[in-house]
Amino acid sequence: MIQKLIENIKKTNAPIVVGLDPMLSYIPEHIKKAAFEEYGETLKGAAEAVWMYNKKIVDAVYDLIPAVKPQIAMYEQFGIPGLIAFQKTIDYCHEKGLVVIGDVKRGDIGSTSAAYATAHLGRVQVGTQMLTPFGEDFATVNPYLGTDGIKPFLDVCHEEKKGIFVLVKTSNPSSGEFQDRLIAEPRTEAAQCIAAAPDPAKSVQSGTDGMRPLYELVGEKVAEWADSCMGETYSYVGAVVGATYPEMGKTLRRVMPKCFILVPGYGAQGGKASDLACFFNEDGLGAIVNSSRGIIAAYKQEKYAAFGAEHFAEASRAAVTDMIEDINGALGHRF
Amino acid sequence: MIQKLIENIKKTNAPIVVGLDPMLSYIPEHIKKAAFEEYGETLKGAAEAVWMYNKKIVDAVYDLIPAVKPQIAMYEQFGIPGLIAFQKTIDYCHEKGLVVIGDVKRGDIGSTSAAYATAHLGRVQVGTQMLTPFGEDFATVNPYLGTDGIKPFLDVCHEEKKGIFVLVKTSNPSSGEFQDRLIAEPRTEAAQCIAAAPDPAKSVQSGTDGMRPLYELVGEKVAEWADSCMGETYSYVGAVVGATYPEMGKTLRRVMPKCFILVPGYGAQGGKASDLACFFNEDGLGAIVNSSRGIIAAYKQEKYAAFGAEHFAEASRAAVTDMIEDINGALGHRF
Repeated sequence: MIQKLIENIKKTNAPIVVGLDPMLSYIPEHIKKAAFEEYGETLKGAAEAVWMYNKKIVDAVYDLIPAVKPQIAMYEQFGIPGLIAFQKTIDYCHEKGLVVIGDVKRGDIGSTSAAYATAHLGRVQVGTQMLTPFGEDFATVNPYLGTDGIKPFLDVCHEEKKGIFVLVKTSNPSSGEFQDRLIAEPRTEAAQCIAAAPDPAKSVQSGTDGMRPLYELVGEKVAEWADSCMGETYSYVGAVVGATYPEMGKTLRRVMPKCFILVPGYGAQGGKASDLACFFNEDGLGAIVNSSRGIIAAYKQEKYAAFGAEHFAEASRAAVTDMIEDINGALGHRF
Repeated sequence: MIQKLIENIKKTNAPIVVGLDPMLSYIPEHIKKAAFEEYGETLKGAAEAVWMYNKKIVDAVYDLIPAVKPQIAMYEQFGIPGLIAFQKTIDYCHEKGLVVIGDVKRGDIGSTSAAYATAHLGRVQVGTQMLTPFGEDFATVNPYLGTDGIKPFLDVCHEEKKGIFVLVKTSNPSSGEFQDRLIAEPRTEAAQCIAAAPDPAKSVQSGTDGMRPLYELVGEKVAEWADSCMGETYSYVGAVVGATYPEMGKTLRRVMPKCFILVPGYGAQGGKASDLACFFNEDGLGAIVNSSRGIIAAYKQEKYAAFGAEHFAEASRAAVTDMIEDINGALGHRF
């Protein structure tokens, strides 16, 4: 599936992913009205509004982008009907040829992690049948529980040619609370080589005396897991690193050379295109930048207000075009 | 809801929780056969088997226990039908007066964490209606993203009088990979006081020179969050600490005096009753010990084999009785 992601990126010349994270407050009144008229002000009504909204946005942008990233929390908040809308969205995006990254941030241990991996990337045996639960192509995964939590995902990735993005350094303001803590243990030999490479940002981020922040240690682990799960040039195992921390991104890019980096935090969260170059490799690949609100609720921005709520999906298309131009301009490359 | 948990524990004299983590391999053939005959070898068939299995176990043990902890991964692996079984299980356990701890290990940032909190503990506004999605009483939460990830859960806990258990030190073998790393930053003043208390285990766990492991730092944060969200004697904010690490449990018990500790790892994972005393406070409260496989698949153990697959639920009841006796024996207390 990493090959399919790379192909899609090259085909669209767009290293971006659209976050399908619908909030009811983003959805135009005429869509909510129609859904509530059909199903009432119920979880089912809300889920129908979400699905209609998603469908129109996907119809408007699918030919411009390689992938989508539905955030499951936004569906889970509408209970079972919400998760049915999540499932419909995945299936519809697949019909349109898009790679689907399930932003599920799951993570547990042993058989429980295996069950999550099955739920989102694998197939489950029921009697004599092998059935597909949600069927995303990639899933985001939380590393706090260590290798026991990740290994079951790697097994499913191997089997199904699916992939994961492991949280390394998240885009939020308090991500440093634990992720940036300096670890009082020396670097491994390999890590020392990376650290010894000339990089002025390095000394700022990693402190002195061979100590390094937790996110770097997690990045090293991700690189190890990635080595065990290689596609042609990139691994099935990638990482999440926030656009809001470009200096850390520079270090992590080198710590995890074969990993695709999923980069949230562009646009609404404050990450700028000029900060993104460091997340990419010299081949112009290796990163995929997410925007959610900035695309799906574009019609609410002054810049795209002329489209009006009726034409929200066209506003999303304009916002995608602008985002691709902004990022490719800053990267100075075309495939 | 922390008050209800405490009342239920006192009423049953059982500081335990039964993990409803059904695997198809645990479910007796006669139940699977009936479910597959009705719905085929489908996700719906599997989910029906899970639900029938859970219902019989709950019917057999509900009067002995204060709470259940369904592990959502085991339901999510059967897609939408699986999650319908999860919902039915929650609702049925509520009918039986049980506290329901959703073992969901969610964690994200900002509006996304708020959506997860809403999904599992809160209510969502749809038009003029306030609706309940899954409606558990407690949820487990992953701290890797810091306060931004936890704060939205605290807001919902305040509003709905619900609770969370934050992962601090998990029960799995590789939990130390990140959680045990020594942090090269001095303790806060409060933490120094705790560390200065006479505890021979302390020096072993926390290294020297004021450095401390990541889990202890996370524990301190949990204690802070807990202070902001108090019930009568305990907080709505608790922690997860594995039975497999009793020495660390001893430290964490003192770092988080007002937190209930949810203790996985007893039984099948190797944790012993004699290791559990350190997780409790002097009032005999402050911890709740989970067993999943050891209870729900008791009939597969030699000790309970005489019940046979037909009487699996009675085997579960016997296993609950034995677990309560084992733990209360080791704790040497009754309420």
